Amino acid sequence: MKVDGVPYRTIWLDDDGWSVRIIDQSRFPHRFETLRLGDVDDAARAIRDMQVRGAPLIGATAAYGMALAARADPNEDNLAAAYQLLLATRPTAVNLRWALDEMTTALTRNRPADREQVAYARAAEICDEDVEINRAIGRHGLELIRRIADLKPEGERINILTHCNAGWLATVDWGTATAPIYMAHDAGIPVHVWVDETRPRNQGASLTAWEMRGHGVPHTVIPDNTGGHLMQHGMVDMVIVGTDRTTATGDVCNKIGTYLKALAAHDNGVPFYVALPSPTIDFTIADGLAEIPIEERSGDEVARITGLNAAGFIDTVKIVPEGSPVANYAFDVTPARLVSGLVTERGVIAPNRDAIAEAFPERANPIALQGALTVG
Amino acid sequence: MKVDGVPYRTIWLDDDGWSVRIIDQSRFPHRFETLRLGDVDDAARAIRDMQVRGAPLIGATAAYGMALAARADPNEDNLAAAYQLLLATRPTAVNLRWALDEMTTALTRNRPADREQVAYARAAEICDEDVEINRAIGRHGLELIRRIADLKPEGERINILTHCNAGWLATVDWGTATAPIYMAHDAGIPVHVWVDETRPRNQGASLTAWEMRGHGVPHTVIPDNTGGHLMQHGMVDMVIVGTDRTTATGDVCNKIGTYLKALAAHDNGVPFYVALPSPTIDFTIADGLAEIPIEERSGDEVARITGLNAAGFIDTVKIVPEGSPVANYAFDVTPARLVSGLVTERGVIAPNRDAIAEAFPERANPIALQGALTVG
Repeated sequence: MKVDGVPYRTIWLDDDGWSVRIIDQSRFPHRFETLRLGDVDDAARAIRDMQVRGAPLIGATAAYGMALAARADPNEDNLAAAYQLLLATRPTAVNLRWALDEMTTALTRNRPADREQVAYARAAEICDEDVEINRAIGRHGLELIRRIADLKPEGERINILTHCNAGWLATVDWGTATAPIYMAHDAGIPVHVWVDETRPRNQGASLTAWEMRGHGVPHTVIPDNTGGHLMQHGMVDMVIVGTDRTTATGDVCNKIGTYLKALAAHDNGVPFYVALPSPTIDFTIADGLAEIPIEERSGDEVARITGLNAAGFIDTVKIVPEGSPVANYAFDVTPARLVSGLVTERGVIAPNRDAIAEAFPERANPIALQGALTVG
Repeated sequence: MKVDGVPYRTIWLDDDGWSVRIIDQSRFPHRFETLRLGDVDDAARAIRDMQVRGAPLIGATAAYGMALAARADPNEDNLAAAYQLLLATRPTAVNLRWALDEMTTALTRNRPADREQVAYARAAEICDEDVEINRAIGRHGLELIRRIADLKPEGERINILTHCNAGWLATVDWGTATAPIYMAHDAGIPVHVWVDETRPRNQGASLTAWEMRGHGVPHTVIPDNTGGHLMQHGMVDMVIVGTDRTTATGDVCNKIGTYLKALAAHDNGVPFYVALPSPTIDFTIADGLAEIPIEERSGDEVARITGLNAAGFIDTVKIVPEGSPVANYAFDVTPARLVSGLVTERGVIAPNRDAIAEAFPERANPIALQGALTVG
């Protein structure tokens, strides 16, 4: 997407044709800098220090980390060490392991002399595949926005509320929840985005707002408390959010506070959509509330906040009194009954077991399918 | 209530018997200081600079402001000037005008020579009346908590969620939503309070948390996004909040975000109570959503946040990117259908027109009542 008129991805090959450049997201939204990754250590540091974030982008960075390692020394020992180094940066990131395994498969199938070239090619493919999935999500979501626009007087703005950052900064390009918004904007539909601040880590205020401003999409940052009031007064036409994990039955685990917005949307007849690449559907889980463990993070993320002070320096201030305990649950689960549809790369799917299984039969029922293929 | 073991009110007469002391709330929660008001200008400054806040406390401070003015010069011209000076500090505060009118009535009924004494007596009464109303709210709310406690195993904690600060710092003592909590705690019921941070002004994290810590009530600060998740998992037994204005039909206008918590409480079968002194019931309004105008405040309250930095200084940092617009709606309206009961000084009342009118007949139907009295 664009940053002040210039198109970017979050990760790309530098002019030298082999080193990797990323957008340094660690000092967002007050500093915009790009960073050169010259070896696997640079790639590991970028992931560990959250200069890159978001599952797809972490995977893409790890893939290029393996390519940098293969360039330096394509032999098994070095590749195995690179794999371990990169895997240890964010051990719970599912996409990270997947990308590393994909790279390893491609590398080990080839002779050391060919590995550098193979690695760069596979890393580029991983990036392009992410972009294509998001583009497909965007196209399907765009139709939803277009339908709302068609019911409004010409030129009246379409108000879309989003929570957290399921934006292009978390992916290679487009984002998931934001892809339909960017496409609608680029198609000349007058979208306006209500950007939930998203306490405690403020990904909405610091990342989504920055994205929207950069690409020129009209938007307004609001406290997380505000969405219900806006919906009561007809000021939201649609909610669209991302998800970290969706069950086989359509329960949606996403950033804490998503459930409250889904309740308000339901109470006010506002459609509530969830954009997701199908790999985030967890077919082993049927009951999101009972089965998805919710990560508890450090209370410091709530008690302290970082920003730019009047002197132009980045400072961190404590906003909870000394001696008051803090709880920090990272996610909540929105029951499928509150979800209007799942916007996937294969279209908009009803949030129930049958519809999800029908759209992704190879994942919903892999054994039956395998059986069928064997018999056939 | 107590601050680290020492009982306080928010406003009291100093040892000299005439000057007034307040708790300076403008630098909460990181600084606790009391402040001496020696003349009406001090009182006006305390209200204007939000060293005192909350409708009842603003009224009480204005009342003592008039007493200080009467002490300096009890003649009409000076009292009229004091009235205008104090009224201009927060022109939209209903309680402020009410307290000033009460003082004026008491003063003008008496000769200048008696006015100082009369003024101090009426100001003290205004304070005591506030304390008595809150104490009555507390007693009725305590019964609700006791009923929940009676259904639990001995010693199991009662989890109460509150939003914003309807605490003793906003009143002369006890607070409204907090009065039942303090009484339950003092009665040995093991209450634990989930304190909503309450963006954007963070009254929960900075005031309610400070109050709870000072009085020794177990509590945990949470982002506003968290309450729904807690209710889904049985971790909230009761919600109790305050209100700025409640309609004759029981719609509740309160700090932005209250509606979202009411929706979550309703979705999870958690009782949702609103504590209020009956003067905040507006009998002229029937439809809260349609008829209560919602104040829009400066976006700076969202974009900038103040706290204590690592060096021990109070600093303000910007947390929204340059160029991103911000909206700041101060209140929302929770429809009566989501409210379990109104906890007033006359008991717990169902949120509907008949029940409210039955509890407060003299205000619901003043003309009919007057007619009845005349006929009678």
